[in-house]
Amino acid sequence: MAALKELFKGATKKSISKVDEYVDLDLSDYEEVIENEPAEMYIRIAELNNLNELPDLKKEVYDGNMLLVDISLLKRDKFNLDRAIKELKQVVEDVHGDIAGVGEEQVIVAPMGVRIDRSKIFGGK
Amino acid sequence: MAALKELFKGATKKSISKVDEYVDLDLSDYEEVIENEPAEMYIRIAELNNLNELPDLKKEVYDGNMLLVDISLLKRDKFNLDRAIKELKQVVEDVHGDIAGVGEEQVIVAPMGVRIDRSKIFGGK
Repeated sequence: MAALKELFKGATKKSISKVDEYVDLDLSDYEEVIENEPAEMYIRIAELNNLNELPDLKKEVYDGNMLLVDISLLKRDKFNLDRAIKELKQVVEDVHGDIAGVGEEQVIVAPMGVRIDRSKIFGGK
Repeated sequence: MAALKELFKGATKKSISKVDEYVDLDLSDYEEVIENEPAEMYIRIAELNNLNELPDLKKEVYDGNMLLVDISLLKRDKFNLDRAIKELKQVVEDVHGDIAGVGEEQVIVAPMGVRIDRSKIFGGK
């Protein structure tokens, strides 16, 4: 029984609480991993600090994963930022993926078969 | 010849410029769509302003697309934010996708087969 309870814990815990009930939202609260599901693709979150990290980032895209890269720390170093973007763009050309800036401080790098929609589906600009 | 030139324009323009050359980076500069490639999945960027937008957002995930949702405008309205997150989480459970907060103002909602890596591959916390 304990095992069964454990099995359903994740699934039922949330659905029991009433939708209309006030809950103070903690972002970590819904950072829940659905375990043991096979993943075809991973979304990796990265902060780009310097060019030494580029080979690992590029490998992720070659491996078919998506990157959401925070470039805010490189914004003042336009030389290296531009070089990083150029290299990521080259990977995207190689794998027929996609790359786009989101706002001023993030870049999405998408692997083969994934396209970034440039028009916000909600929200201006 | 003109057609051929046009064909290679996108690909060669960037690679001709020297890597070491200083270029003032314009984010829109690398927001380039690779046209005419079939996409299995789209990444849609959205700003969540109110709950009326939820059905369209949910449809995207059911359709197999990924969302990067800016929730900053709903942050002060915890009641609606929590409700929105609950609904998106329900979709993710339905389709065996994934959902996670990125920083304090963004939520990634991933469709079936896509997992969000919680550990930043670079950069602390």
